[in-house]
Amino acid sequence: MLTAAIAPGTAMSAPGNRKMGYAIVGLGSYATRQIMPQFANCESARLVALVSGTPAKLERYGAEYGVPRTHLYNYQNFDSIRDNPDIDIVYVVLPVSMHAEYTIRAASAGKHVLCEKPMAMSSAECEAMIAACRQAGKRLMIGYRCHFEPHNRLAIELARAKFVGPTRQITAAHGFNISAGQWRLDRTMSGGGSLMDIGIYSLNAARYLTGEEPTEVVALESTDGDDPRFRTVEDRIDFTLRFPSGVIASCVSSYSSGHNDYRVIGTNGWIAMEPATPYSGHVMHVRKDGVTERRELPPPVKNQFVAQLDHLPECVSAGNEPIVPGEEGLRDLRIIEAIYRSARERRAVTLVSA
Amino acid sequence: MLTAAIAPGTAMSAPGNRKMGYAIVGLGSYATRQIMPQFANCESARLVALVSGTPAKLERYGAEYGVPRTHLYNYQNFDSIRDNPDIDIVYVVLPVSMHAEYTIRAASAGKHVLCEKPMAMSSAECEAMIAACRQAGKRLMIGYRCHFEPHNRLAIELARAKFVGPTRQITAAHGFNISAGQWRLDRTMSGGGSLMDIGIYSLNAARYLTGEEPTEVVALESTDGDDPRFRTVEDRIDFTLRFPSGVIASCVSSYSSGHNDYRVIGTNGWIAMEPATPYSGHVMHVRKDGVTERRELPPPVKNQFVAQLDHLPECVSAGNEPIVPGEEGLRDLRIIEAIYRSARERRAVTLVSA
Repeated sequence: MLTAAIAPGTAMSAPGNRKMGYAIVGLGSYATRQIMPQFANCESARLVALVSGTPAKLERYGAEYGVPRTHLYNYQNFDSIRDNPDIDIVYVVLPVSMHAEYTIRAASAGKHVLCEKPMAMSSAECEAMIAACRQAGKRLMIGYRCHFEPHNRLAIELARAKFVGPTRQITAAHGFNISAGQWRLDRTMSGGGSLMDIGIYSLNAARYLTGEEPTEVVALESTDGDDPRFRTVEDRIDFTLRFPSGVIASCVSSYSSGHNDYRVIGTNGWIAMEPATPYSGHVMHVRKDGVTERRELPPPVKNQFVAQLDHLPECVSAGNEPIVPGEEGLRDLRIIEAIYRSARERRAVTLVSA
Repeated sequence: MLTAAIAPGTAMSAPGNRKMGYAIVGLGSYATRQIMPQFANCESARLVALVSGTPAKLERYGAEYGVPRTHLYNYQNFDSIRDNPDIDIVYVVLPVSMHAEYTIRAASAGKHVLCEKPMAMSSAECEAMIAACRQAGKRLMIGYRCHFEPHNRLAIELARAKFVGPTRQITAAHGFNISAGQWRLDRTMSGGGSLMDIGIYSLNAARYLTGEEPTEVVALESTDGDDPRFRTVEDRIDFTLRFPSGVIASCVSSYSSGHNDYRVIGTNGWIAMEPATPYSGHVMHVRKDGVTERRELPPPVKNQFVAQLDHLPECVSAGNEPIVPGEEGLRDLRIIEAIYRSARERRAVTLVSA
């Protein structure tokens, strides 16, 4: 299991069972509200450094988490993290436009990297990030937290075990009614609209629920050009994916309506999650042989955030590739580019597997 | 309201409040199990004649419903219904390939026509049916029963009244795991696979929930050519429709997985139905301002089958066009043809409104 503690005696790259040290780069609300409080529950990870362009944030969160002044960095002196042996891993939680730069600088400074999704502005950037980490001999992992979440892991197991018969259809919808004034609505920082930010959950779910890579996509976009939120990025973009086994996934991505659900439909029932990918409060129903039942899971030993933070150090120690490596982010970006192309050129786009 | 009784004194084409007489053409399971038992609850319709190619069926159902031998017809002597003044309306419940012929023959025999969906094999056939009925001065209605069903009618009202904000997205899925050996699986009789038979509910729902006609469609088909059920018709075909207001509808149609749901998602919540279009047992939930509630409706005065059977006689009496005239069936067929074309040609297809 991903969440198993490292057994005593396991070879480790660091002495003893020392927790590996994370530097958090970017102190926005996701980093400060969702991620940083989770280190208290980690077995293999600890928060040791902060990077921000805002001195007041460094001051505030440094005090809150007991990070010494020597371990507070800004974007100018970021590269000096190379001289700080307490930092093993850099977690990039910046706007998308900064992911590639800070991943590559972190690897060049001799650090492993955990980078938020979407991985980068383009598949070309993803490839450069992968190459930089490989060249530096460092691990690269992408922040696909759902892969560490128990309901989603059970859905994957049930779907791949054909619990409701072979999968025939997937439906997946993710969206919210976005408020104005965010970097997400500025294409130069986000790389795109709802698809890059939230629709990627529909896409990634279709891939992890099938365990396959899509071979074809058709997409249709709808954006109200008069809505000031959508001057540079798309609002809604729905896309349909074909998988090699014949499964079709019909996916919704929206910045003006609320969605957080998916369903795997087999020949004999379905597995439904709604909400499917929240921070907490997942609800799962399974219908089989004409009977629908709710599946309730016990509280996990590690929640998805803790399990994700612990996974990379454990991979580094064991010499393993993370379950969501840079290549996983690259695959999504290639499909995202195909979705955008399909919508723009009004035609089906064939995907060539990497 | 559609279901209101005709007020005393309303001008009627038949003397007094006489119920109009229906001839049922085609005694398959839908006609005999779902439709014929409903006449007992009709105000404006009665069953007066039967048409079948199977003498044993005529014998059995004639006896069961008290239809005299003089009012039992086969496909050879069908045209002699013109001489039977008890027959006002012919209800065509035949395989799709026979819809156009029997609609046109019924109109030529001076009868109004109620024809099951899908209306015909092609839009060209639909146009011929509409022309024949117009020329004969007879009404033509298509059996879109959901337009007469209270939960669906409430969903339409709530969606169009922007109860959960302006609609942004619709998702709709219809399908079942079809058993072999049905005329539906023979393209020469059905005109197509899941889309013609069950996916049409997703399509029609997207149209009645928006009250708009789509302007563009993209589609993707997936059929296992090794499955003996799918030698001549498609299994799954998912399609995405764009509407003039900007709404996108993401629709599923399947012959190998079970689906019966739709959802209208606005800027402030959603209206969900599952099952959405069953014969009975509809379940509706509405989410608004972050609160989800089930909407339960009292048993209707007339169920969807009774209301549909009564509607055409009441339109004939009042000189009104039915709410689901031939043109409604034609619109669906034109879009179905565009969906098939999009899947075949792997490109978006633009729809020109009729």
